[in-house]
Amino acid sequence: MPHIPLPDHLPGITGLLEYRLDTAQPIRELTQILLRGESTLSEGERELIAALVSSRNCTNFCNAAHTKAADLLLDNDEMARAVKNDVETAPVSEKMKALLQIAALTQQSGRAVSPDAVDRARIAGATDREIHDTVLIAALFCLYNKYVDGLATVAPTDPAYYQMLGERITGRGYVRPPGGYSKS
Amino acid sequence: MPHIPLPDHLPGITGLLEYRLDTAQPIRELTQILLRGESTLSEGERELIAALVSSRNCTNFCNAAHTKAADLLLDNDEMARAVKNDVETAPVSEKMKALLQIAALTQQSGRAVSPDAVDRARIAGATDREIHDTVLIAALFCLYNKYVDGLATVAPTDPAYYQMLGERITGRGYVRPPGGYSKS
Repeated sequence: MPHIPLPDHLPGITGLLEYRLDTAQPIRELTQILLRGESTLSEGERELIAALVSSRNCTNFCNAAHTKAADLLLDNDEMARAVKNDVETAPVSEKMKALLQIAALTQQSGRAVSPDAVDRARIAGATDREIHDTVLIAALFCLYNKYVDGLATVAPTDPAYYQMLGERITGRGYVRPPGGYSKS
Repeated sequence: MPHIPLPDHLPGITGLLEYRLDTAQPIRELTQILLRGESTLSEGERELIAALVSSRNCTNFCNAAHTKAADLLLDNDEMARAVKNDVETAPVSEKMKALLQIAALTQQSGRAVSPDAVDRARIAGATDREIHDTVLIAALFCLYNKYVDGLATVAPTDPAYYQMLGERITGRGYVRPPGGYSKS
């Protein structure tokens, strides 16, 4: 049961984003810019970072939602699972492996991101902007994960819920629908 | 040395917020609403949460900046130091002790925020909104700390720098000055 009263029909982050609309708005904007804005990383690659960080933080709601988003964007149901299992053996480019390792280090602690980890990414062709965005996406998902778990929100267990949510965040992105969410 | 090129005259978070202005804008807005917007927690109390979380994450820049902001807002140079040393013996109310412990648990992991920790706050008079805001402020400062340290930004060692920064964020808040920052 959540630590504060939240609507039953809005699990995970969705109820929190309706609880305080004024703080939700910049959180949504930041996410929309970082995950859907112009970037040399694909939307699917950026969702892999979100899924990996959420998995390392053991935040079931965000892990399931962003894994599904990555699956849909990459048209591949195995990639996110492989990344979360072992970045080094996942079927992604060397550049993405290096960036995903930077994200995993950021999840542990900002101070864990070593010059060697950054050098590896740069040698594999990563730009300053890609390194910057990887750290900021990882930091943003630590915010989400701590927000979602720190208030003990509910994570549905039915995969159909995350299929619906994955379709929403890949189709419409992270903006709030006009009028909010109905119960249906 | 930072992992990406940042201007020498803009240490810590200040250079990152100028590096990507589009992502900086919602980060600034969220901070302004949470730390300076209407609340039953004083601005000084909210800066204590920011300082405690930054201290636990060992992020020297944010720790020094928000400690100074708390000092100025509370007109007391000892309170933030006492809180960071031991919340339980710090000269703050029982409600603030309970909220600061929730912030410290959020820093560790969202899943560490127990029903007992929340009950303690509620018994001491904390509202749902205060509990919500404490978790979100703690989560936001984990984002900041991971962003600042994950890109290896520089933390000045001169206390005069944090006096200047503390006066800026207590006087003008977290909004960007028109035209950004000069070198002077």
